[in-house]
Amino acid sequence: MTVVGVDMGGTNITVATVDDDHRVVERHRTATPAGPDAVLDAVVAGVRELDAGADAVGVGVPGPVADGVLLTAPNLAGFDHPVDVAARLGAALGLPVVAENDATAGVIGEWVAGAGRGARFLLGVWLGTGVGGGLVLEGRPFRGAFGGAGEFGHVPVRQGGALCGCGRRGCVEAYAGRANMEQAVRAAVAKGRRSILPELATERGKDRLTAGVWARALEREDDLAVEVLDEAVSALGAGIGAAINLLDLDRVVLGGGIAGKLGQPLVDRVARASRRHTLVPDADRTFALAALAAAAGVVAAAALARAATLTGDHPA
Amino acid sequence: MTVVGVDMGGTNITVATVDDDHRVVERHRTATPAGPDAVLDAVVAGVRELDAGADAVGVGVPGPVADGVLLTAPNLAGFDHPVDVAARLGAALGLPVVAENDATAGVIGEWVAGAGRGARFLLGVWLGTGVGGGLVLEGRPFRGAFGGAGEFGHVPVRQGGALCGCGRRGCVEAYAGRANMEQAVRAAVAKGRRSILPELATERGKDRLTAGVWARALEREDDLAVEVLDEAVSALGAGIGAAINLLDLDRVVLGGGIAGKLGQPLVDRVARASRRHTLVPDADRTFALAALAAAAGVVAAAALARAATLTGDHPA
Repeated sequence: MTVVGVDMGGTNITVATVDDDHRVVERHRTATPAGPDAVLDAVVAGVRELDAGADAVGVGVPGPVADGVLLTAPNLAGFDHPVDVAARLGAALGLPVVAENDATAGVIGEWVAGAGRGARFLLGVWLGTGVGGGLVLEGRPFRGAFGGAGEFGHVPVRQGGALCGCGRRGCVEAYAGRANMEQAVRAAVAKGRRSILPELATERGKDRLTAGVWARALEREDDLAVEVLDEAVSALGAGIGAAINLLDLDRVVLGGGIAGKLGQPLVDRVARASRRHTLVPDADRTFALAALAAAAGVVAAAALARAATLTGDHPA
Repeated sequence: MTVVGVDMGGTNITVATVDDDHRVVERHRTATPAGPDAVLDAVVAGVRELDAGADAVGVGVPGPVADGVLLTAPNLAGFDHPVDVAARLGAALGLPVVAENDATAGVIGEWVAGAGRGARFLLGVWLGTGVGGGLVLEGRPFRGAFGGAGEFGHVPVRQGGALCGCGRRGCVEAYAGRANMEQAVRAAVAKGRRSILPELATERGKDRLTAGVWARALEREDDLAVEVLDEAVSALGAGIGAAINLLDLDRVVLGGGIAGKLGQPLVDRVARASRRHTLVPDADRTFALAALAAAAGVVAAAALARAATLTGDHPA
């Protein structure tokens, strides 16, 4: 079966054909245009441009989804109201289309084709601008009562703590999201703390502290970088500890930019930090680095379409 | 079908016949003796003493359970090693017997017969000496990968915060468990804070701050009592917020001594506190006071036996 995965990101739209072994066969990328009509047209054009005819399409979208409808997407211009992504793409392409929140798609992708294979109680944690999450429980993707499950980034670990992008205080994301980590650095530097982070970013022509900038500063043992990362690891450990105490997980997968850059040593640190909060230790619980890496978005979306098509869980 | 529920507590063993409408028909109570043999003999004697012949027996036990085996029970003398409660009672009685952790049994009881009826994504929170919890997810009791799910009391909400009975810091229980609340009061009084809590306990001939003592001190607006309860409500709100952000629950049930005494106003306060941490609000999510009250233990255990017997999930 030929399946197409679409990663509808705030910066780029990536469209790819993915084979039965979850490998990318052909891929196109285009800058994300403004507005739902233009975005959906770009996806349709991308799918049609692929050499192989598709049997099904999976789309990962950056916001909450209910029945294929993207409810809102703060990082996509013009998506401030519900857009029926699955139905509109399905009608335009004449194909079954499934749409899923990108963090949820990511955990399903890792579960089907990556570091989550074989797990039955899996938490995926995505370290990006914010902190995303997704759950597989009892061997099935878990969405909760109203479709909003897996918001790991907003698990409160320090009541009254640092301000999060969501407006609340003490969320995991307030310590471990790239945007919040950068704010902590800028605030400390503004108060006179020394750090090579800002100049490393400037040297590399970046206007923000990318995962690469963080990795270099940590290699050079920049005090402030080490301190902010320690806080991130500690908050991730508490959040994952909360999830394990509630859910008794058998696997935790860490992915996203900074996880990819810092690799297994970061995963090991987070695992140790979480064990400090875990009531019932279990030797069979494993922590792993996400395996799909750069192609995660499209491979996950394609895996989702494949799974949905096999189980008949798609708009015909 | 005649089903017997057994509540094997640290102080008393309660054995009851429970009818098809989850009402207690007949009940016996005896002080809990020391040692597994004596405890199991007391349960067998209690079941035989009931007028109606039983078709199945459910037992709630104060510790982690795997396949009917009570692994350990800190509050039961001599239960410092695994005891095969279900198999030993089953052999002695010649009946199908299921054994379950009492917090898990409690949430199943509320779900089948109490304030959790109709919920599909339910968290039960039990405010006792400690803080217990249990989950029903997707319309089924949830036990996790290794049987240790539902440890709501040990969700960390304040990293580096108050010391919990489990030896960790900042758990929900460190603020909302009766033992920890009492410690907070004793520590404050030792430092010179004024409070009517200790004298209320003495007046009532209690050597600890019971739920009744708390209720009276709060009625009389004792500053320290109000302050310690505020902290408990705040920690419960953060922990429930964590669970909702991860699991998108449709119902939360609060039970246990202090919840029973303070009633719906406490439930409403905890609901408001949790909403401050909830990313995706939902009008259809409800918070309720546990309905089975004093009979919860035996009714829950009986409901469990009934459910297990109906699904064939019991040792024959």
